[in-house]
Amino acid sequence: MAKIRSLVCRECGSEYPAKAIHVCELCFGPLEVKYNYDEIKQTISRRSIEAGPKSMWRYMDLLPVEGPQVVGPHAGLTPMVRAKNLGAYLGLDELYIKNDTVNHPTLSFKDRVVAVALTRARELGFETVACASTGNLANSVAAHAAASSMQCYVFIPGDLEAAKVLGNLIYRPNVVEVEGNYDDVNRLCSEIAGEHGWAFVNINIRPYYAEGSKTLAYETVEQLGWRAPDQVVIPMASGSLLTKIWKGLNEMKHVGLIDSVATKINGAQAEGCSPISTAFKAGRDFFKPVKPKTIAKSLAIGNPADGYYALKTTAESGGAMDMVSDEEIVDGIKLLAQTEGIFAETAGGVTIGVLRKLVKQGVIKKHEVTVAYITGNGLKTQEAVLEAVGRPTRIHPSLVSFEKTFKVGKHGGDA
Amino acid sequence: MAKIRSLVCRECGSEYPAKAIHVCELCFGPLEVKYNYDEIKQTISRRSIEAGPKSMWRYMDLLPVEGPQVVGPHAGLTPMVRAKNLGAYLGLDELYIKNDTVNHPTLSFKDRVVAVALTRARELGFETVACASTGNLANSVAAHAAASSMQCYVFIPGDLEAAKVLGNLIYRPNVVEVEGNYDDVNRLCSEIAGEHGWAFVNINIRPYYAEGSKTLAYETVEQLGWRAPDQVVIPMASGSLLTKIWKGLNEMKHVGLIDSVATKINGAQAEGCSPISTAFKAGRDFFKPVKPKTIAKSLAIGNPADGYYALKTTAESGGAMDMVSDEEIVDGIKLLAQTEGIFAETAGGVTIGVLRKLVKQGVIKKHEVTVAYITGNGLKTQEAVLEAVGRPTRIHPSLVSFEKTFKVGKHGGDA
Repeated sequence: MAKIRSLVCRECGSEYPAKAIHVCELCFGPLEVKYNYDEIKQTISRRSIEAGPKSMWRYMDLLPVEGPQVVGPHAGLTPMVRAKNLGAYLGLDELYIKNDTVNHPTLSFKDRVVAVALTRARELGFETVACASTGNLANSVAAHAAASSMQCYVFIPGDLEAAKVLGNLIYRPNVVEVEGNYDDVNRLCSEIAGEHGWAFVNINIRPYYAEGSKTLAYETVEQLGWRAPDQVVIPMASGSLLTKIWKGLNEMKHVGLIDSVATKINGAQAEGCSPISTAFKAGRDFFKPVKPKTIAKSLAIGNPADGYYALKTTAESGGAMDMVSDEEIVDGIKLLAQTEGIFAETAGGVTIGVLRKLVKQGVIKKHEVTVAYITGNGLKTQEAVLEAVGRPTRIHPSLVSFEKTFKVGKHGGDA
Repeated sequence: MAKIRSLVCRECGSEYPAKAIHVCELCFGPLEVKYNYDEIKQTISRRSIEAGPKSMWRYMDLLPVEGPQVVGPHAGLTPMVRAKNLGAYLGLDELYIKNDTVNHPTLSFKDRVVAVALTRARELGFETVACASTGNLANSVAAHAAASSMQCYVFIPGDLEAAKVLGNLIYRPNVVEVEGNYDDVNRLCSEIAGEHGWAFVNINIRPYYAEGSKTLAYETVEQLGWRAPDQVVIPMASGSLLTKIWKGLNEMKHVGLIDSVATKINGAQAEGCSPISTAFKAGRDFFKPVKPKTIAKSLAIGNPADGYYALKTTAESGGAMDMVSDEEIVDGIKLLAQTEGIFAETAGGVTIGVLRKLVKQGVIKKHEVTVAYITGNGLKTQEAVLEAVGRPTRIHPSLVSFEKTFKVGKHGGDA
């Protein structure tokens, strides 16, 4: 597998073989996959990608798996929606929604990272997979484990949305509900990962897992006609997604698929859990852990593993960060649904809310090609909007009842 | 628009211009779109299709719209999942799931028919769209109307699943909840369609709307490597979907995209609403309307508009029909989720349950290439399975609590 050179420590640069390890033995820094780009460059081209499968696996040359057999063969290559209505509303000429609300099979961007993680876990000989999750990750791990006949444990916090709980149970993994919040779940899973030889996708398999997010960058570039956008807005939980979109964009330049990357990377959090955005706005390069309290539960990580790198990435790209209130999150969900017909989960409301703020502040300008990443489906977080959408209007099954209730005259039509 | 020749009466053959009409003035038979296949044949090819958009619109030559501007540009081209685990379980060598649970944007096959209906409605000059729906159709009409800035009324029965109600309200159409079941809603909408000049997608726009279902046949053939399957299993509500998949397969032969069609068309219903399957099993070519009582609410049409034609189609193709109980529907949903990682709504449980029956009966044989159509997402009908999947196992956030509860020894791992 010559395309993967090693795992490398992001702090001290020490290199390790590409096994199930995630922490540097020398300095405890996080490990990341390092590639032989010169070799990848020889084989990859726009043409080879376009001739590939209609999924994120068309970018397999830039993913840390041996292949060709993969878990999750249908993940990714979700629609890039030209958002004319929302763009007009916000005052943007060219706005796109990268729409992972229809990702296969569990309707969130986590299907990308899990497809890579389980493929690599299987290649490394694991038969049991596990994860600590705020919900979407657990759904995806459970579904992919079922489809690939792997044993599965998913660990979730005690206050998860009903649809996300059911979205685990239906696949019949071991669903472990931990009394506490995500940070408690994550601490426990780190302990368990040390004791049991399982593939914890976001712990000991994390270096591979996180690479799956790069496919959002690759698809963005290809779907925009092989160009990098001017501005992107990305929701942040651990902060990993934001760093990997930046990595992916730069890799495409590095291997010669595009000539330049001048993309500004903007990060979005909820006010009730905004350790990264708060640090950015205060001009700090470190964050202070918080106790989350927000309806955006999928982003409720108070001690984000990649927060430091997210801050670095946004600064390096010349981007910005901001946060929105729970009310603004709900408004964001409704605005996206009512202008573009896309029903996003709370994280999507965060992204749209922050996009709106950044436009208002003049950070994102009218003529800039802008992409907002919508990472999960609204049917998973129904509780958040139920009170805000009203109720149907109830009528008797008669024409009179309808016309009286809706005050529409006869023959009042269009064509 | 030379590819569309006319609307033609399915009973007496009278022809009409391609306007917003759906019933023959002479014999009251239903109208259907008639094409100039000789002309279509000149331009269509496997190559032209493969070079088309990554959506159902790659088959635009065979759809009743003028184009090129369409509503719902990202609908369709959903994954064809090779179901090895489920196939092995059932004893089938080559089973596929055509997976519309991730259709764009509202997670059901209705996004196909609505994309065609609203495109055509706009072309015919309508500004207001409406529908009578068991839920999925309303969700899709509401979303597409929002995205295309059309006025919208959706009419739903009073007992709809919570997610389907919210899946309307979020897009802010006029949501009209009618006291009664779908057949009551449908009768009322027929009256309203006669009084108001709106585009009722499944009433006066029905001839165009229904054609959208053909894209499931086109995609099936292309995704199987340009061959028609031996057996298909299709859920039936009005029966329209089944008839259109048959039409689509035969059109592909007619315009020279494939050489032969020997597909057996099998229909699936729920025992609590099985007017079509009951008629078929009794050897009748007509059905008796019923009062629906089933958890498969999206299929709960007691007086199915295309029931007669569905019976005819299945007989013509040499297929079969069957029905399953509510318990078998839940089992079917769980079986699909736990073998293939796909979470389907109740209609999917009907399809899997009937597939299982037909294999057991020897109707579908081991070596036959079989496609099961999974038409909607399980997050929309959570009520149906909640009781059947158990609850998470709750633990304290400690290693001891985990190991005691799950009885897993230390270092009991794989790799």
